[in-house]
Amino acid sequence: MRVPAKRMEGISPFYVMALLKRAKQLERQGMDVIHMEIGEPDFPTPRGIIEAGVEHLRSGNVKYTPAAGLPQLRSGIADFYRSRYGVFVAPERIFITPGASGAFLLALGVSLNPGQQLLMADPCYPCNSNFVNLFEGRALTVAVNAASGYQLTAKLIRRNWTDACMGTLIASPSNPTGTVIVPTVLEQAIAATEDLGGCFYSDEIYHGLVYGKQAASALQFSQDVFVINSFSKYFGMTGWRVGWLIVPEAFAEAAEKLAQNIFIATATHSQYAALAALTPATLDELEARRREFKKRRDFLYAGLLGLGFKIADKPEGAFYIYADCSDFSDDSFQFAHDLLETEGVAITPGLDFGRNQARHFVRFAYTASIPRMETALRRLQHFINKDSNTIAR
Amino acid sequence: MRVPAKRMEGISPFYVMALLKRAKQLERQGMDVIHMEIGEPDFPTPRGIIEAGVEHLRSGNVKYTPAAGLPQLRSGIADFYRSRYGVFVAPERIFITPGASGAFLLALGVSLNPGQQLLMADPCYPCNSNFVNLFEGRALTVAVNAASGYQLTAKLIRRNWTDACMGTLIASPSNPTGTVIVPTVLEQAIAATEDLGGCFYSDEIYHGLVYGKQAASALQFSQDVFVINSFSKYFGMTGWRVGWLIVPEAFAEAAEKLAQNIFIATATHSQYAALAALTPATLDELEARRREFKKRRDFLYAGLLGLGFKIADKPEGAFYIYADCSDFSDDSFQFAHDLLETEGVAITPGLDFGRNQARHFVRFAYTASIPRMETALRRLQHFINKDSNTIAR
Repeated sequence: MRVPAKRMEGISPFYVMALLKRAKQLERQGMDVIHMEIGEPDFPTPRGIIEAGVEHLRSGNVKYTPAAGLPQLRSGIADFYRSRYGVFVAPERIFITPGASGAFLLALGVSLNPGQQLLMADPCYPCNSNFVNLFEGRALTVAVNAASGYQLTAKLIRRNWTDACMGTLIASPSNPTGTVIVPTVLEQAIAATEDLGGCFYSDEIYHGLVYGKQAASALQFSQDVFVINSFSKYFGMTGWRVGWLIVPEAFAEAAEKLAQNIFIATATHSQYAALAALTPATLDELEARRREFKKRRDFLYAGLLGLGFKIADKPEGAFYIYADCSDFSDDSFQFAHDLLETEGVAITPGLDFGRNQARHFVRFAYTASIPRMETALRRLQHFINKDSNTIAR
Repeated sequence: MRVPAKRMEGISPFYVMALLKRAKQLERQGMDVIHMEIGEPDFPTPRGIIEAGVEHLRSGNVKYTPAAGLPQLRSGIADFYRSRYGVFVAPERIFITPGASGAFLLALGVSLNPGQQLLMADPCYPCNSNFVNLFEGRALTVAVNAASGYQLTAKLIRRNWTDACMGTLIASPSNPTGTVIVPTVLEQAIAATEDLGGCFYSDEIYHGLVYGKQAASALQFSQDVFVINSFSKYFGMTGWRVGWLIVPEAFAEAAEKLAQNIFIATATHSQYAALAALTPATLDELEARRREFKKRRDFLYAGLLGLGFKIADKPEGAFYIYADCSDFSDDSFQFAHDLLETEGVAITPGLDFGRNQARHFVRFAYTASIPRMETALRRLQHFINKDSNTIAR
């Protein structure tokens, strides 16, 4: 019995972690590595948030908060939904969690039974299926492509639903594709899932990072949904580990009980700091960053197309471009590996996001400045040309 | 399917939470409540730790750390084991987690299969069995009493072991009893569990808060154990949410993989602050607090005995006294409830710690100053006398 539990076989490590480790080794050896593999904004946390964190620390009163979170943060988030999305969410349905990871843990812990299946798109963020495996469920992945903007649709949900299905997960903006679901498609996906008697999970952690329009929240169409969000990405608070989960009313009591047990509470100073994330001054600063991300997206999108990568539609959100590199390699893992080793450009292989054409795709994160990405594109060009020379020889 | 998962039936809420909520209501109504229900030191976080946290926040660099934790914190903890316990632990086996809650989650996530049983003492900390239920296992609780210092022994382990058992959990100092396991008993418990082919889990979160001697770590007797610890209690960092898990080497790879998925990482500023917890200056400050806790323990122990509570042996650790109140009431929940309502003294009913004579016991936390506890004892005396008057009438 003194071996890892069986569920661990179904939980995959992140391939990008090995790459990241290697990138750090290369850096120690003096190589200049451009990091386009990391799903973390390169901007520091906004000053107002930091100062709120410092102020709370200096109070010395870094004690446990209630398990569900600071009441003023829960109502602050409710206000945010009212002003940004025009929806009313009872603060009692909002749970503050250690990042979106904690939100997923709580959402599936209270709702997924062993043996049940959760429907989700492939490609998607790798943790999603791993969380399902953690609770002895099974991810039922549906291969999606550019035709549906890499998103599930009501039709795909109905076609793939099984007796073992207990719900649907949609992530918009999507990691790795950056695509944003069309509001009516989201509405229909929720309706289809509810018709089938399932729970609907909406991963909205890249909300706010959308270029040209606003992403719709699942809460605009139903109150009976789980919504996962966090202060990490748009609000620039990755290392602070503070996210939130909104649950259907029928799950609120269970969520409170489970949060008490598995978290006790989320880090107190992070919660106080997050209060400052919702102020007009911080939101202005974040909007300026969003505009910068948009510029980067435009720059990288044009650059990759120019080099011969195939990209379905211009991604509308998050900070990722999911690019087809099959004209250069039939093994995107090897492609990413060699690109790092020879040119010092780190990207994420498609394998981290599923099995659907994963060997043809790589993910670029535009969490590096335009000048750095300019250098990265030059190195990519050199890499591709050298490679085609090798093939020609 | 849109109802909470079945596992939630096996996960109990903390009774003390309802009490705490009521205590806060009473306070808002103007009642002076003495809090002896909370498992949280009343001291603020030591200044050096706060300053280290502030310094890190001011750097603006609050980014994700590696999933297993900051390398310097992992090696700092390894050094701490060397200097305090004289044992060598490879930093690669040390995982930084969001509090001890995260450590339990990680430990059981990587090792417990559905349907398996984990042997543990009753009374014990309520989350322990809830974590087991979370992963579809079953807590096999063994009623313990003063005869074994409320701890499991090799004999109890062998006698209660079943085919479904996969391990033993021991908590020393124990919550709620404050008892510390005798080193040879711990050694034999580990040996018995290993003989039976099980995993051994040692909850050491109250280490450091031991009065008169040092608690032995399971690592002094075997390297093949899980050790759960945290910066919350002895180090005074509850709200910071930073703990650690030490795993047997065979589980290190699985723990890394699972930590990536369920945490991404522990709060960065909390980890930097924790580095300062291990410095000689902070440790001196903590030792002074330990001496204060010892004084409080002596004061409260004598006071409760004087009032007629029955307490087996003088508890040697943590900051709890588990007292038999059966001379005053045959329902300790009602006793705690009435004591709060009429006298404004909040304590925790035995029901929160299991079923073994739970209606006879209450837990007092000496996380209040001696003057406050003096008042609490006067109120208790009044409460008990009034009560016996009522009975006499």
